[in-house]
Amino acid sequence: MSGNYLGNRVVTQIGLVVRDIERTSQAYAEFFGVEKPQWFWTDAADVARTEYRGERSEARAKLAFFDMGSLQLELIEPDEHPSTWRESLDKNGEGFHHIAFVVDGMKEKIELLGNNGFPLLQKGEYTGGRYAYLDTFKDLKVIVELLENDR
Amino acid sequence: MSGNYLGNRVVTQIGLVVRDIERTSQAYAEFFGVEKPQWFWTDAADVARTEYRGERSEARAKLAFFDMGSLQLELIEPDEHPSTWRESLDKNGEGFHHIAFVVDGMKEKIELLGNNGFPLLQKGEYTGGRYAYLDTFKDLKVIVELLENDR
Repeated sequence: MSGNYLGNRVVTQIGLVVRDIERTSQAYAEFFGVEKPQWFWTDAADVARTEYRGERSEARAKLAFFDMGSLQLELIEPDEHPSTWRESLDKNGEGFHHIAFVVDGMKEKIELLGNNGFPLLQKGEYTGGRYAYLDTFKDLKVIVELLENDR
Repeated sequence: MSGNYLGNRVVTQIGLVVRDIERTSQAYAEFFGVEKPQWFWTDAADVARTEYRGERSEARAKLAFFDMGSLQLELIEPDEHPSTWRESLDKNGEGFHHIAFVVDGMKEKIELLGNNGFPLLQKGEYTGGRYAYLDTFKDLKVIVELLENDR
């Protein structure tokens, strides 16, 4: 019994990888009767400092977000550089990629989880915070993402 | 622009298909520091009246639920009879299956969605309500489930 590695169990985001973010955004907007959000690129490598499976990567992705009740649905269209997004799209095709949780103390969480059998898969920075994907699939059958926002 | 087929966009459930519900429930309980819930069988065919791709099916599944903030995470271990659960497990392996929304007027919703390019994939009854999975994958990259509870 771990006593909750993350400090909470509130799903804050569901992430999907897609091949055409314009098309899928349009489909969501029509299905749920909302405006199509404008997608944007993740930060370039000098800001994002992306690491994927222990190595620096130039990977970027187009992102679009939909408010879905208490959580966000995130659409992700990855570029061709190595990333968990690209790997998921190549291996499993379009669809579900991760569920995300907000945490405090990213560095300590990554270390704690790594020591308990959940190694880091990818991490990076964004304006106002940072993210980490953990290799939780074998046990939880999903990839778990941690999000930490600066205060 | 449809004006929202479902009447809301609150994700109430995330569903995963698994091969061993005991094992994955245990993993979730340890990861999130909660008690392992007791799984249970979906109702037998005479109660569930399951229809999968337009035909009656004897399919059942073991289910277990975790409270995750504002939504439930549902683990589903299907039996061998034809179902969307079995199909997903055979085709994609373990992992994500659907996101669910609570609706009013299930019959009308199924008809409305069917008329707009989202055919029914599977439906059934449970004590206190009914569910329907829609074939939304091509557009939304997820299967959408509707849940209607009796009042």
